[in-house]
Amino acid sequence: MLSMQMIRDAADVLDGVARCTPLYPAQHLNDNVYFKAENLQVTGAFKIRGAYYKVNSLTAEEKAKGIIACSAGNHAQGVAYSAAKSNCKSIICMPSSAPISKIETTKKYGAEVVLVDGVYDDTYKKALQLKEEYGYTFVHPFNDEMVIAGQGTIGLELLEQCPEVDQVIVPVGGGGLISGIAYAIKHIKPECRVIGVQAAGAPSMFKSINLGHIITLDNVSTIADGIAVKTPGEITFDIVRKYVDDIVTVSEDEISSAILMLMETQKSVAEGAGAASIAAAMFNKVEVNNRKTVCIVSGGNIDVSIISRVITRGLAKSGRLVEIVCKIPDTPGEMARMLSVIGKTRANIINIRHDRNSIVNTCFVTTELETRDSHHIEELISALSKHGYTVLNKS
Amino acid sequence: MLSMQMIRDAADVLDGVARCTPLYPAQHLNDNVYFKAENLQVTGAFKIRGAYYKVNSLTAEEKAKGIIACSAGNHAQGVAYSAAKSNCKSIICMPSSAPISKIETTKKYGAEVVLVDGVYDDTYKKALQLKEEYGYTFVHPFNDEMVIAGQGTIGLELLEQCPEVDQVIVPVGGGGLISGIAYAIKHIKPECRVIGVQAAGAPSMFKSINLGHIITLDNVSTIADGIAVKTPGEITFDIVRKYVDDIVTVSEDEISSAILMLMETQKSVAEGAGAASIAAAMFNKVEVNNRKTVCIVSGGNIDVSIISRVITRGLAKSGRLVEIVCKIPDTPGEMARMLSVIGKTRANIINIRHDRNSIVNTCFVTTELETRDSHHIEELISALSKHGYTVLNKS
Repeated sequence: MLSMQMIRDAADVLDGVARCTPLYPAQHLNDNVYFKAENLQVTGAFKIRGAYYKVNSLTAEEKAKGIIACSAGNHAQGVAYSAAKSNCKSIICMPSSAPISKIETTKKYGAEVVLVDGVYDDTYKKALQLKEEYGYTFVHPFNDEMVIAGQGTIGLELLEQCPEVDQVIVPVGGGGLISGIAYAIKHIKPECRVIGVQAAGAPSMFKSINLGHIITLDNVSTIADGIAVKTPGEITFDIVRKYVDDIVTVSEDEISSAILMLMETQKSVAEGAGAASIAAAMFNKVEVNNRKTVCIVSGGNIDVSIISRVITRGLAKSGRLVEIVCKIPDTPGEMARMLSVIGKTRANIINIRHDRNSIVNTCFVTTELETRDSHHIEELISALSKHGYTVLNKS
Repeated sequence: MLSMQMIRDAADVLDGVARCTPLYPAQHLNDNVYFKAENLQVTGAFKIRGAYYKVNSLTAEEKAKGIIACSAGNHAQGVAYSAAKSNCKSIICMPSSAPISKIETTKKYGAEVVLVDGVYDDTYKKALQLKEEYGYTFVHPFNDEMVIAGQGTIGLELLEQCPEVDQVIVPVGGGGLISGIAYAIKHIKPECRVIGVQAAGAPSMFKSINLGHIITLDNVSTIADGIAVKTPGEITFDIVRKYVDDIVTVSEDEISSAILMLMETQKSVAEGAGAASIAAAMFNKVEVNNRKTVCIVSGGNIDVSIISRVITRGLAKSGRLVEIVCKIPDTPGEMARMLSVIGKTRANIINIRHDRNSIVNTCFVTTELETRDSHHIEELISALSKHGYTVLNKS
């Protein structure tokens, strides 16, 4: 059974293995908001805390047989690293569709990776099958009290780093992280609120808590792959029901904006799941005025190709990037005239595509432009219209 | 005259204004390498240290008149922030071609921004002209002993954070940062080496030191805009000549790879100038084995659109992204067959363009693919060739 004693024991075991991650002010967002940078944790996410505490507790015999886990991401790396640190063999079942970078990193940490066609559930079945066959110990990503105790060490740390904290916002997938943190905090400072955040595209714990029983989602879809879980755990569901004050959801655009904000103003790389807590504060899903708030930025393992997409989306959303399709007459010099109108508004051209439509004697010019904000875009469109150019579309 | 007393005084003045930035291990690179994260400094770069120390020293009368500076980036923000903190008006001349985000941030810190057509040199002329006209105090970005003393506080900090340091690698533009750091370090721990790094596309200090006199480059071109300086300062040149052990240069690709490495493994956003020091260690421009090395990551103010480009370039360079142009027969089903060959190698398709060339009865298929490494790309090309597809080009 989970207890404060276990969480304190986990903190001792993790000393020298996991980092006590820094707490940074997110002053660009709000003077009351801080974030605990678990993206700077060893292996790039909090998962090593629970995984190492679990693996470390195994008997010599169990370690000799080896451990098995299934994950598309952070748990895979956490288990692989923990096993290597404990001189223990590890087998990780990963979906064959997982980003190549995550598969490679897991191997680099010393795990044997078994690629399984299908989604997470298929890797889970495969892992259980291999466990039966070879006698491996299965390390569950969240529904395990030792794993939860490991994650709970974050609660101890943040109460030491910020004893005056009024509330903590925690990303929720299967519920292991928030269970550990909520248990620790409510036993030490019960008046501190603990709030969960899920992606609107994967609200399994949110719905389960609201309905009062565990449900399984048919499908989940979110950029925050670290918290895209179809079914909450039974242990975690009970803990969340007992100790968590509220759960909110954030949209994909909100998560993207939070990732971008962390990069631009905090110079910090967070994955979608990690940025979800910041998104909740940023978009007023949780009231932060007059409440000292700690957001758990749970991890930073975001594929760089996703970063590119987030940047484009975030810039478009905040009016700093716009694509405009403009109809212009098909006569020499017209394109130059149009571009000089754009230049005068100080919008900066990134890309141009010019398509001639010979039938109607007009051309369609698509320009991708760097702009200041949505007001600037309006200015730009009105300048083009005033000069007789028809803006057909903007996105 | 610059003295240790001035640098220690600067440290006192900066207490509570500038942050003592953390020193992180860059263990993915080398166990001996650490980096001092000035990208986490207030305003996102070290510049506030020198600027605030300078502005703070002005008389009430000078402050009342206001200060003026010219910069396309970090110095602009550092001066604007410092002036606001000292209740002093600031005017910053910026090139009109500067990224919109940098102009907006400078305004947000409270400065009046004067946009000047042309390059840095034109903003410099404009700033001097306005200084004459209105009696403003000019805050030079590097060639000023108070500014240098402010940057020197980094040297004091890192010697406290890592007393066993053997060498320090410092990005060099005009030379203010390295002058301050080298002066401080050589006066406290003379056996510690101080090495400068410049972008190969802007090697003004590198060439000046090698020639023994200050030279002016005709033009500079580098992604590391923070150290793209045509002419080193006179004061900084003398200090560098006296206290710096060596200067090396890094290429654009090396800088890009370092930016990417910092994002992926350290979860840290650095600008080109900031990553240059890491690039020098990463690409063996400086020997780091058996030498405890601190790289100064001088700033993190990189335009997010540049990050996108860096990601693409970095992935391509490390063999994790490739574009292949393949000639295939123009017959039904051929495209599917070709793609299944690609699929079997486990390369992941990002983009496809299919161009029919009706004259020779063939098609050209351009695929953008996610791959593991350059070995994987070779595998892929040989699989395509074995199945009779002609790979025309890869990039």
